[in-house]
Amino acid sequence: MPASLRFLIAAKRCEVTELEKLAQTSPLIRATAAWVHELQRERGLSNLYLAAAVTHNNTNSAHSQRLAEHITRSQAVADQVLQCFEQIRLSAQDNPLTAPSALPGHGARLFNRMADVLQGLAALPYLRQKVATRAWPITQATQAYSRLIAALLSVVFEAADSATDPDASRLLVALFHFMQGKEWAGQERATGAALLSAGRADAVLQQRLLHLIESQERSFQMFHEFASPSLQTLAHTSQDTHQRAELERLRRIICTPPAGQPLSTSLSSTWFDTCSQRLDQMKAVEERLTLDLLNMCRDKTETAQHDLQDWENLLSDPAAHLTTPSPVREPSRYFEDSAPPTGDGLTAPEHQALQGRPLIELVREQSQRLTAMAAELDTIRASLNERKLIERAKGLLMAHRQLNEDQAHKLLRQTAMSQNRRLVDVAEAVLSMAHVLPRT
Amino acid sequence: MPASLRFLIAAKRCEVTELEKLAQTSPLIRATAAWVHELQRERGLSNLYLAAAVTHNNTNSAHSQRLAEHITRSQAVADQVLQCFEQIRLSAQDNPLTAPSALPGHGARLFNRMADVLQGLAALPYLRQKVATRAWPITQATQAYSRLIAALLSVVFEAADSATDPDASRLLVALFHFMQGKEWAGQERATGAALLSAGRADAVLQQRLLHLIESQERSFQMFHEFASPSLQTLAHTSQDTHQRAELERLRRIICTPPAGQPLSTSLSSTWFDTCSQRLDQMKAVEERLTLDLLNMCRDKTETAQHDLQDWENLLSDPAAHLTTPSPVREPSRYFEDSAPPTGDGLTAPEHQALQGRPLIELVREQSQRLTAMAAELDTIRASLNERKLIERAKGLLMAHRQLNEDQAHKLLRQTAMSQNRRLVDVAEAVLSMAHVLPRT
Repeated sequence: MPASLRFLIAAKRCEVTELEKLAQTSPLIRATAAWVHELQRERGLSNLYLAAAVTHNNTNSAHSQRLAEHITRSQAVADQVLQCFEQIRLSAQDNPLTAPSALPGHGARLFNRMADVLQGLAALPYLRQKVATRAWPITQATQAYSRLIAALLSVVFEAADSATDPDASRLLVALFHFMQGKEWAGQERATGAALLSAGRADAVLQQRLLHLIESQERSFQMFHEFASPSLQTLAHTSQDTHQRAELERLRRIICTPPAGQPLSTSLSSTWFDTCSQRLDQMKAVEERLTLDLLNMCRDKTETAQHDLQDWENLLSDPAAHLTTPSPVREPSRYFEDSAPPTGDGLTAPEHQALQGRPLIELVREQSQRLTAMAAELDTIRASLNERKLIERAKGLLMAHRQLNEDQAHKLLRQTAMSQNRRLVDVAEAVLSMAHVLPRT
Repeated sequence: MPASLRFLIAAKRCEVTELEKLAQTSPLIRATAAWVHELQRERGLSNLYLAAAVTHNNTNSAHSQRLAEHITRSQAVADQVLQCFEQIRLSAQDNPLTAPSALPGHGARLFNRMADVLQGLAALPYLRQKVATRAWPITQATQAYSRLIAALLSVVFEAADSATDPDASRLLVALFHFMQGKEWAGQERATGAALLSAGRADAVLQQRLLHLIESQERSFQMFHEFASPSLQTLAHTSQDTHQRAELERLRRIICTPPAGQPLSTSLSSTWFDTCSQRLDQMKAVEERLTLDLLNMCRDKTETAQHDLQDWENLLSDPAAHLTTPSPVREPSRYFEDSAPPTGDGLTAPEHQALQGRPLIELVREQSQRLTAMAAELDTIRASLNERKLIERAKGLLMAHRQLNEDQAHKLLRQTAMSQNRRLVDVAEAVLSMAHVLPRT
């Protein structure tokens, strides 16, 4: 039996392994999305609780109880995430080579992100205590919750950036953009709540609100680019048009008054409820996305395992590839490169019987399929580049200007706003000037 | 002991694993480069043998013997490559998860390329017989050898495209471009030999020669961009200036006469010897490159294993990270994001003692280092994009216009030459027009 068949099968086996890894990661992604939602809710309830203290209204203890109840629930979801983390870590430890290293440093980056999340989880009681004792203002509490949520989003980002199957990659990229959009919506709720609880228009917070609205739209646009039609429909129909109009009315009321003008604190609960309903509706889409991912990974893994079995059967049938193509024909075909490929490279060869087909065709088809997959993956991942560029520009500013992450981000954002340019364009400009920045 | 430390270590372990995989691949790369050189030589000797038949000169049996001797030697080198292939395949089979899958589909693509090489090896006796019996003209024999050499170059390309360590990636990219340049030089020798043995200027072959000279220069320029200064010096000093001048003189003599004009067949052996000396000198650089790679991978793996040990020692010293940073300090720092990073993210933390440092700093440093590495890898790999774009454009033309690979390549090349544009620009234009191409 020709040696090349063994390598053809080894290649197939790699594909199966990649899918199995993806199937192992998808429950983690689902749990992560669920925890993000709980944290967003906790951030919202904390805001209400802190705002109630500011306005001295008497719903205070009710807020306090809602928050306490929610924290218990949130903790249970966090435990699920921890279990998934631990499962992946242990499987990597038992055999260091099973680390989900589907991308350059992917395994390393994913575990690093997990370490970051765990530190956030360990720091969460500290944050909750600052909220409970009202030691922190709304904005600081919001920022702290957002920091942990960003850490969780990074886990989803790494998974999206490293999936090696184009369909799964597409779904993960859609999910990431959707979650990112939802998080901007969550921060919008918090920023609006802070403005309303302060009771007067503030130019910085209003600017921030407009920036969050814009970022949201951009993220959802990316989601639409990669989501399946049925997901797009779900995202569309899950939006209540009445609520949508109400949101836009409230946005206008909050964003348009000049700085210093009073804002009606009585709008607080309407704003909070409208935003919260919207976030809950988004959660339904998020759940569908993560469920689709789970099912897709399971189905694809099963199919790939069956395919692999078909290929491996060729090994036990040595005659299959020695009889059909004449021994003279194969070598000449190798040098001729004569056969134009069939299809787009993404379909064959699973739909055709393997038995009796010249090996040279099978190798060529596999090669075309893998090349087409790599090209498709490159295209899908390109949509993640924006975030990478922004992260890199931030890192550069942090190193060269001795800023912390938050300061670096603010500098980029303010530059973008004052020059009326997109954040990513400013990031690119910073990176292209790397060599002229002073080293401190 | 904090859970995040375990994940920090899991991330480190992934890095070590990636380096170990690289160390496993580097002997394969070295053997592959050696075999490519032997095949280039065999192609050259076959050309001499076939040309001698055309010109009826009496060095025929001498050529025949030189060729036969060389084939024996070439086969021994091929066996080494096979052993390396088999070793990697077996280690992947014993444990499917050890497949060198450092990149999207990398494992799959690498094995697919190996399968292709093995088919070429199986077809080699057929090719040699066609040469021995003079059943094929020089150009056809040249093309057949070039096909197998291209398959071997693809193996090096996949390795260069998937290395996850920036230093190794840089070296592999330099090696790939150097090998590609050397292969263009080898094809230049063959094309010049075909022209001289025909005894008259031929516009198509002359154009081809000019194209090969240009491609060579481009490849070597890429090599210089990524090679270390000492490698650049070696590449420079290994070139004999006298021989360089002689080559340019011969190029002029061959390329400038108008089509149909006689070329002096007596220049054949001067041309062949000058080109061959040059290829042999390049071989020295190639060998240094692959040796550097071997040593670097071994050293880096050892260092990383030691580092990992240091980290793992922290696990057995639970006090280290519970005493030093006060328990209150850590959580507040998590939300503060206060510490600006030190250095460029690529140096720390190996140079500092790990003991007693706050975990939060270690996680942050690891994150910055991994991000900086990913950014550097992206930049290095960008130099491989040209080839990918050309391959994809070829694939597209093959699928849409029912061409074989060679025809697709010729179409691209001719378009580039007639429009005086670079091949990669034509490829990009083809890809950007994908949606308007008819589906056959």
